[in-house]
Amino acid sequence: MYANGDIVVGEVIGTALLILFGAGVCAAVTLNHSKARGAGWVVIAFGWGMGVLAGAYASAPLSGGHLNPAVTLGSAVAGGTPWSKVPLYILAQLVGALIGAVLAWALYYAQFAANDGRSGAAPQPTLGVFSTAPEIRRPVANLVTEIIATAGLVLPLLFFGQNKGIGIGQVPGARVGVYGSGINVLLVALLVVGIGLSLGGPTGYAINPARDLGPRIAHALLPIPNKGSSDWSYAWIPVAGPLIGAVLSGLVYKAVF
Amino acid sequence: MYANGDIVVGEVIGTALLILFGAGVCAAVTLNHSKARGAGWVVIAFGWGMGVLAGAYASAPLSGGHLNPAVTLGSAVAGGTPWSKVPLYILAQLVGALIGAVLAWALYYAQFAANDGRSGAAPQPTLGVFSTAPEIRRPVANLVTEIIATAGLVLPLLFFGQNKGIGIGQVPGARVGVYGSGINVLLVALLVVGIGLSLGGPTGYAINPARDLGPRIAHALLPIPNKGSSDWSYAWIPVAGPLIGAVLSGLVYKAVF
Amino acid sequence: MYANGDIVVGEVIGTALLILFGAGVCAAVTLNHSKARGAGWVVIAFGWGMGVLAGAYASAPLSGGHLNPAVTLGSAVAGGTPWSKVPLYILAQLVGALIGAVLAWALYYAQFAANDGRSGAAPQPTLGVFSTAPEIRRPVANLVTEIIATAGLVLPLLFFGQNKGIGIGQVPGARVGVYGSGINVLLVALLVVGIGLSLGGPTGYAINPARDLGPRIAHALLPIPNKGSSDWSYAWIPVAGPLIGAVLSGLVYKAVF
Amino acid sequence: MYANGDIVVGEVIGTALLILFGAGVCAAVTLNHSKARGAGWVVIAFGWGMGVLAGAYASAPLSGGHLNPAVTLGSAVAGGTPWSKVPLYILAQLVGALIGAVLAWALYYAQFAANDGRSGAAPQPTLGVFSTAPEIRRPVANLVTEIIATAGLVLPLLFFGQNKGIGIGQVPGARVGVYGSGINVLLVALLVVGIGLSLGGPTGYAINPARDLGPRIAHALLPIPNKGSSDWSYAWIPVAGPLIGAVLSGLVYKAVF
Repeated sequence: MYANGDIVVGEVIGTALLILFGAGVCAAVTLNHSKARGAGWVVIAFGWGMGVLAGAYASAPLSGGHLNPAVTLGSAVAGGTPWSKVPLYILAQLVGALIGAVLAWALYYAQFAANDGRSGAAPQPTLGVFSTAPEIRRPVANLVTEIIATAGLVLPLLFFGQNKGIGIGQVPGARVGVYGSGINVLLVALLVVGIGLSLGGPTGYAINPARDLGPRIAHALLPIPNKGSSDWSYAWIPVAGPLIGAVLSGLVYKAVF
Repeated sequence: MYANGDIVVGEVIGTALLILFGAGVCAAVTLNHSKARGAGWVVIAFGWGMGVLAGAYASAPLSGGHLNPAVTLGSAVAGGTPWSKVPLYILAQLVGALIGAVLAWALYYAQFAANDGRSGAAPQPTLGVFSTAPEIRRPVANLVTEIIATAGLVLPLLFFGQNKGIGIGQVPGARVGVYGSGINVLLVALLVVGIGLSLGGPTGYAINPARDLGPRIAHALLPIPNKGSSDWSYAWIPVAGPLIGAVLSGLVYKAVF
Repeated sequence: MYANGDIVVGEVIGTALLILFGAGVCAAVTLNHSKARGAGWVVIAFGWGMGVLAGAYASAPLSGGHLNPAVTLGSAVAGGTPWSKVPLYILAQLVGALIGAVLAWALYYAQFAANDGRSGAAPQPTLGVFSTAPEIRRPVANLVTEIIATAGLVLPLLFFGQNKGIGIGQVPGARVGVYGSGINVLLVALLVVGIGLSLGGPTGYAINPARDLGPRIAHALLPIPNKGSSDWSYAWIPVAGPLIGAVLSGLVYKAVF
Repeated sequence: MYANGDIVVGEVIGTALLILFGAGVCAAVTLNHSKARGAGWVVIAFGWGMGVLAGAYASAPLSGGHLNPAVTLGSAVAGGTPWSKVPLYILAQLVGALIGAVLAWALYYAQFAANDGRSGAAPQPTLGVFSTAPEIRRPVANLVTEIIATAGLVLPLLFFGQNKGIGIGQVPGARVGVYGSGINVLLVALLVVGIGLSLGGPTGYAINPARDLGPRIAHALLPIPNKGSSDWSYAWIPVAGPLIGAVLSGLVYKAVF
């Protein structure tokens, strides 16, 4: 339905915007010398949700605005996205997430630079700006959390589409119209706000393998003073959990329709 | 208007999503070891509202997205939903609410497990994650609160519909279209945000018998350490109040049109 | 354009819902024994905004959802609402505001009853639940604040309408359609959220004579323990300021078009 | 596409409303004797976003609702707005921003007057109500922050438009319709909420030369007690950064389409 070139451009730019806003809001709330420092969970959840709005707003006309391998996979299982397009979507999402994390780092460059311990405040761990971590480290429970939280995203998307032809925020016909994608973009953005508020407590709601893995790679590579561990031992959970949740959502969808 | 199978699927999945988000946000804000702990009333109200968005988003094309026996009853009194469908709606909503509460418990499993008193923090009561309780226990006043708060939900829904054919978020014709239900889903979700913010102070705004009773049954059955009482002596108020408020709203609607 | 009976029903019910939510959120945030106590300004602003959503959602198909003498007056000056209908609108809005304040009091009955000084907490003043008061009492400055804040509401409404035929949230034709009023209701509700957040600091943003006067009458009449003064010496400002702001907005509109 | 007179009226009134709300919310949260004092970053971000809603709501039918030289410039580079109209847009935006800052000062007159040190509280700096300032003063880093943050606004706007004919929130045809501009206004307003939450931490997100320069001139001219410096040495960054970000966004757009 979408051309390969459009998918690449849409998903790279859209996912980069998503992570710019998402990693940005985590930096805003947690880093020293940020005006939003300590602004709380409501800011985190709305920041990520408006990141979905920005990214989907930009990419909906090009690629449908998936921005998330779990959305692409769920759509493929449900019959909405051709399997042949899935690797391209996921690769573009990972590249976009990496770019977005670098942009967020550049935007908060002075704050990261001030983490050198010479500017008064003690150095602080920085991974939380980039990737998720659980409050209680119990792999099976953490995995279950990510599976259910992702189903809370993908199931509504699939069911709202109802007919395969309009699954995942698409409107019948080759291109999304201004009106159709407008209201859909908004609903999905607010859905992600809700997932953050309600389902993010235990693990910080990755619900998107690219959202967690791309920025984690960026964290490992970027020259940040006192950046701390990139915590690779946890990295498989925010990848596997969302993918399992997406497949289950697609199967529920297929069982119903 | 909707087929029986669609009603069951739509209301079970939709109400399960509503309670997953709603019980989820109560867990997020109140449980120890949650990233959103202490995030305040605005988070509670938006979490429940976005739960309506998720649940109605998923179920609108199938069942009209009632998710609430009070909405179904008000619609029936106003002439929108056939009386013969009412028991099916309510049964599906109760089953969905029970499933949603179990999912929320599974998502916050590690947090509930840490309530055993051995992980440092003292055990805390857990019923507030599942069901409502009044700040001041005065049955008649609590009942009046639930009656008025429910009218604040059902009256706008009925009046906006205006014509019986499009009552309760439905668009003329057999199936809700993408555009129509999109904006309606959003308005109802924000209406519920407002009810939480404005009318939830005294009793925690059940405004939905299934929302309170289903999770209360789940709380009684689930193996939660130090879970405390399920407070069955209060359980009739969040059932009776919303049903009375819905009938009164339907009668006001019929008196006007 | 609207029938007299529809105007009365729409404005009474719509304004009652507005004040139920608005006085409700002030009670929620300020009264002892409320779950939302101390929840802050963002809750106040969203509570009032969602009150606009509830009231306009219910009344848009009947009366256009003015809910505010300033909106009616601005629309009349701009040529949108016939002058012959203005008194009916305003009377219905005042009656609705009085009813809404009584409903909010009934919903928070137990909280008001607990203000008798016997339940532990010291009695607190209660007028803030019902009506506005300035932080710094300077009549001319307070009047200017209300004039400008009301223009911040009425000017966008008038300019967005652009053509007289669709002024104040109306769509061409005798009745507002579901789609048109849906998005308009949402925009006006969020506009009022913004007015609260941005322009409410000095006087608490009446921006609506009925919103302030109706509940003030209710406060004077209702049997609330230790309710304190109804502050009638200030009552003219939240009536005069919004009306002046509305006339100025209508004149700017006429000068441009 | 738009007549010169409509552009002037739309951009002056729209930008004045934007700054009235934006400077207003900064006053609300930071000045002594304001009911919203200390209400936090979420209030700042939503106040500015709803200012976009108010200003664009009013000006969309007249001028397309740019309200920002960076939006106008990005649209011109992308081919949406004729270069011959750009100076008129920018001049009207600056005049509007100046008027809006004066209106915000008038609305908060009593609060500014109380900054004379005689009313108990110590005098406080007032520039933050009008213009932005960085948390860490590093010109190159601050410039990069404003460039990226502005791209986070202009890129989604341009990409969503997709076809030159409907760029920057315009609908094909000479005038924006009620429905089209309605949902677009809302999406752009929420996009700006997200930019505030996520990208505002380092510099306070000017992302708009008129938003910073107009109010800074007002601050320099207005008779405010103990107003402090207008910090002209920083003033070039919130002008240059957004313009560079807009040009880069337009070039990315042209490279893709």
